[in-house]
Amino acid sequence: MNDLFLRACRRERVARPPIWLMRQAGRSLPEYREVRSRVDFSTLYRTPDLAAQVTLQPVDRLGVDAAILFSDILVPAEALGLKVAFKPGPILENPVRTASDIEQLRVTEPEESVPFVFEALEILRRELADRVPLIGFAGAPCTLAAYLVEGSGSRNFEQFKRLLIGEPAVAHRLLEKITAITEKYLAAQIRAGAQAVQLFDTWAGLLDRTCFREFALRYANRVLEFLRPHGVPLIYFALNATHLLEDIASCTADVIGVDWRLSLVEASERLDHKFVLQGNLDPCVLLAPADEIERRVAAIVDLGRRLPGHVFNLGHGVLPQTSVEHLELLVGAVKRLG
Amino acid sequence: MNDLFLRACRRERVARPPIWLMRQAGRSLPEYREVRSRVDFSTLYRTPDLAAQVTLQPVDRLGVDAAILFSDILVPAEALGLKVAFKPGPILENPVRTASDIEQLRVTEPEESVPFVFEALEILRRELADRVPLIGFAGAPCTLAAYLVEGSGSRNFEQFKRLLIGEPAVAHRLLEKITAITEKYLAAQIRAGAQAVQLFDTWAGLLDRTCFREFALRYANRVLEFLRPHGVPLIYFALNATHLLEDIASCTADVIGVDWRLSLVEASERLDHKFVLQGNLDPCVLLAPADEIERRVAAIVDLGRRLPGHVFNLGHGVLPQTSVEHLELLVGAVKRLG
Repeated sequence: MNDLFLRACRRERVARPPIWLMRQAGRSLPEYREVRSRVDFSTLYRTPDLAAQVTLQPVDRLGVDAAILFSDILVPAEALGLKVAFKPGPILENPVRTASDIEQLRVTEPEESVPFVFEALEILRRELADRVPLIGFAGAPCTLAAYLVEGSGSRNFEQFKRLLIGEPAVAHRLLEKITAITEKYLAAQIRAGAQAVQLFDTWAGLLDRTCFREFALRYANRVLEFLRPHGVPLIYFALNATHLLEDIASCTADVIGVDWRLSLVEASERLDHKFVLQGNLDPCVLLAPADEIERRVAAIVDLGRRLPGHVFNLGHGVLPQTSVEHLELLVGAVKRLG
Repeated sequence: MNDLFLRACRRERVARPPIWLMRQAGRSLPEYREVRSRVDFSTLYRTPDLAAQVTLQPVDRLGVDAAILFSDILVPAEALGLKVAFKPGPILENPVRTASDIEQLRVTEPEESVPFVFEALEILRRELADRVPLIGFAGAPCTLAAYLVEGSGSRNFEQFKRLLIGEPAVAHRLLEKITAITEKYLAAQIRAGAQAVQLFDTWAGLLDRTCFREFALRYANRVLEFLRPHGVPLIYFALNATHLLEDIASCTADVIGVDWRLSLVEASERLDHKFVLQGNLDPCVLLAPADEIERRVAAIVDLGRRLPGHVFNLGHGVLPQTSVEHLELLVGAVKRLG
């Protein structure tokens, strides 16, 4: 069994850093595009066999050291009774903006409301047969709340921020419900076979430090503390969060994902050298020529040796236009240089 | 004459912080929407009388302490011979991506290629009659380059970053030409009456520190040094740049604009307390109730007293959905509390 990833998360000595890639299952892979030519995105993540199939593709093709469930960040919104459409980005039919909207959200049992997620994980554990570990994930509460209030992706998430600033008590009631469903959702993923869990706080970087501590970190930590007794490594990734690292230092995760904006060593300093770090190649580097990719991978692997632990990853998801050849080259370089 | 703004920029003692707002002329004002109902955006900024008219609107309506020329960040692209359309965001008919694309850019004399900008400034100085100072502006070279290479606004500016990472020599040739046109463009604005100048580095925050120093700060500093002998205050504003503040500390501007992500005092510490700061109310705060706006304005005014100097502004542009009542309240609060 290749357990490099789990060992690195646990700060055990490893011969080289493990590598996996955010959005490693996706449009860069021809075999993914082939599946998507037959089914839409929503059908894909709701059909356990298909979700499992595309989750395995990068393991087979690229040789990454972990699989991460192919799913959508808004699945827990469905478990709260909301309807999500894709046009092509996610759109909520009814954004959640008032106390009465929040009252109507029901914290269901995810195994009943979104069973397809757990069926996919069970299939994956069987099919992986311990080749590599399987990672489960969810949006962090603040990021899920941002989508729920705004109703879609957004550059500034004005409606969401208006709620945090203007109606903090209402925002906290929403975050309480989201935290409750996220705890259940991730605990169920672990029961179904997830061997590590990542919380994605994609929009936390839009907040100032005070707002981040009150509305984002506090609830992310609640989820992480709830999951702690399950004994699997817990990863927290906030995008564009360089101004928040001194606050994230109080996070209860084992591993902190960091984007490309600061070097791994600078990020580790701001995090008080308390965490294994995951990152942090700029996804745009994979659009550059091969020798430049090699050079930058080598630099990151070198810096990674100065951390409490290092899981190689990108600083954000694989860009859809990335060539599969460059993804192969990246994984090969980490395995060779690490 | 109300010269509070110029005096604050020059670190002179002022009774209260001056206030102006990025995008203070715009859709929040009914009188702006009235003008736009008759002409499209491109006609508006290309017609000196109209550009001057909307520039004056927030001075009259809100009582801000400075006027800033109403124009578009891509005007210097036109001065390089490129065609820009608006659908509704700016689109370049032919993005600039190769050495031969760059060869074809001509560094013209802005007074000849984009005369409408300087005519508007002359009208404005006459009509303002020293009521408040007049600010000119341009995109910083790196941000203009980002638009030219990408061809439009973008979430990640992948094409631009691919060029910086994969073909740095080509990127530098582009930045040389853009720096040359920006120097001429801003010097001409000062000759036409601009009494201060702001460089907007809207996309610098997408870069890591190394990339920022090599491709952004270096060229912004070249422009600022070129303008220095003109004797007007120089403002540098990079959005989402908290990870870059230690580098921006070597900037040759008089005033650094900062967004809302860090408090004014934290930002000033990272900038080694070397600058007058401009900022930094989150524009989303203006969507919240009046008492919350007052509370946050008071907090920023208080922190501003601990800086080498403070110009009150938002952390980014006025959001179009902001009510004019809340803009009036904001300006009134700064004048009362400052």
